[in-house]
Amino acid sequence: MALLGIDLGGTKVAFALFDREGNMKAKEVVALDSRRGADVGKLIAVTTALKVSAAENDGDPVEATGISVPGISRRDRGTVWAPNIPGWDDYPLLKEVTTVTGQIPLVIESDRSCYISGEIWKGNARGCHDAIYLAVGTGIGAGIIVNGELLHGAHDIAGAIGWMGLSRPFRSKYTICGNFEYFASGEGIARQAAEYLKRHDKYQGELRKASGKKVTSQEVFAARETGDIAAASIIDLAVEYWGMAAANLVSLFNPEKIIFGGGVFGPAVGLIPAIRQEAEKWAQPISLKQVSFEPSALDGDAGVYGAGFLALKQISQTKH
Amino acid sequence: MALLGIDLGGTKVAFALFDREGNMKAKEVVALDSRRGADVGKLIAVTTALKVSAAENDGDPVEATGISVPGISRRDRGTVWAPNIPGWDDYPLLKEVTTVTGQIPLVIESDRSCYISGEIWKGNARGCHDAIYLAVGTGIGAGIIVNGELLHGAHDIAGAIGWMGLSRPFRSKYTICGNFEYFASGEGIARQAAEYLKRHDKYQGELRKASGKKVTSQEVFAARETGDIAAASIIDLAVEYWGMAAANLVSLFNPEKIIFGGGVFGPAVGLIPAIRQEAEKWAQPISLKQVSFEPSALDGDAGVYGAGFLALKQISQTKH
Repeated sequence: MALLGIDLGGTKVAFALFDREGNMKAKEVVALDSRRGADVGKLIAVTTALKVSAAENDGDPVEATGISVPGISRRDRGTVWAPNIPGWDDYPLLKEVTTVTGQIPLVIESDRSCYISGEIWKGNARGCHDAIYLAVGTGIGAGIIVNGELLHGAHDIAGAIGWMGLSRPFRSKYTICGNFEYFASGEGIARQAAEYLKRHDKYQGELRKASGKKVTSQEVFAARETGDIAAASIIDLAVEYWGMAAANLVSLFNPEKIIFGGGVFGPAVGLIPAIRQEAEKWAQPISLKQVSFEPSALDGDAGVYGAGFLALKQISQTKH
Repeated sequence: MALLGIDLGGTKVAFALFDREGNMKAKEVVALDSRRGADVGKLIAVTTALKVSAAENDGDPVEATGISVPGISRRDRGTVWAPNIPGWDDYPLLKEVTTVTGQIPLVIESDRSCYISGEIWKGNARGCHDAIYLAVGTGIGAGIIVNGELLHGAHDIAGAIGWMGLSRPFRSKYTICGNFEYFASGEGIARQAAEYLKRHDKYQGELRKASGKKVTSQEVFAARETGDIAAASIIDLAVEYWGMAAANLVSLFNPEKIIFGGGVFGPAVGLIPAIRQEAEKWAQPISLKQVSFEPSALDGDAGVYGAGFLALKQISQTKH
């Protein structure tokens, strides 16, 4: 019996088959190309149908399917909001995929919920009942497990940690994405670089040289490696924000682990000890001693593993 | 059949009997007087024994007991840490009370967990599955319900929101109690008043007149009512912190309600609309629209109601 995990991203969708122990038996990545709106849903449904019938023919039928979506899964309506998929403000993905999966249990969750679920199944949060995945990429979100269950909130948008306020007083520029994300997402780091260049006419370091166009967060990390002072100050500030945010998660949730992942961890993975040092200043001191900070073990595969694990959990819930 | 709810405070302990619908049938408050350490435990056990046998004689026996403690209930060990009860660093309350309750189900929870449970049972969070009680008294804590269950964390110290970092950069003075609590607890408001008086030699307003000794938070609220500018600025700052903290809870938990309680709400209860206005600046905007901010409906009885409700839940869990 197989579990099908599907991970939809902004440019591609990954399909992977797992056994119940979480061993990945096959994986295929399909580009979205120029697809948008319902065409993305159809691509997922058609490819799912192929996977399901191929698994059937192999004598190892799919017993449940999980889908990770880059946004919000509105579980009561079966719809998805995904800002990077044009036309997916309230897309009825459940209905679309159910036309091909039929009676096979199907679960759709946000990518951040899938990331922490994947780490619990086969990554660095194995065995945890209380663990958080801090996903820092273009934006920032948190996948949160409490008492062994995903934290969804009343309307499925829990974990919007990019909106965490960490430095009063308020500035109206934070309203585009939230105070934490403004400074410490990949986009935020790029934004800090642009602001630095604007403020410092005379600076002629790596960030100025980096490119004619907008500096990327990758370029800021690379410049920091060369000893560039501007890049160092931008990353130091991000470390301060990551440390405060992690500390706040520790004080509120008293988790066993915080897993750092997403595109920025990546290059920031070596900064986890510095983030912990910053968190030690702010957090409830006993709770801080009880948590470990770790990188993602699954990197880009966390979503597809998590989708597979949630498919597995769906089976036991359906049978209850 | 009756439920016995017990609420231990720093100076007194309340015992109340409820029916299964949450109607309070009797309540008695016993002063701790000079008791400390094991004597507090014995007072609780002895009074519990009296309540249990009186209920038995009335033909309405106690079917479960809940105890609210002003600190942390370490459920795995059955012990309690309560900073305001001398000698209760790791006091074996479960063992002490079980000697008199015997087979009657017994549950011990932190006061903040009891507050939100009480509001869910008979207060302003009735019917909620995701709700938070922000308790602002001498200190600050949060009782948090997600998916209808209490958030305990890995080691029972979740909800330590007084430690939330809200205003970088870090100052070492925050290590005594946390950044949020430093400015916005009852003690924090008193501390701001003391610092104000020290910084403003020439100020001769209400706070200077208030008393020869340390100004209390009550005196700050009273001075604000008279139009005192110092008191207004201290409370404005607290409103900013309460708003940011509430916003962060909204973004992380996507709750249905946040209940404001504790001694400070109280005099701050009229400020809830101003707190919401502040939260609107910071929070995830959709999540903010989905939450309501409300005062505690139970005030000083939230703990004893919550203890009664958790006793009721203990029965159904025991029978599973």
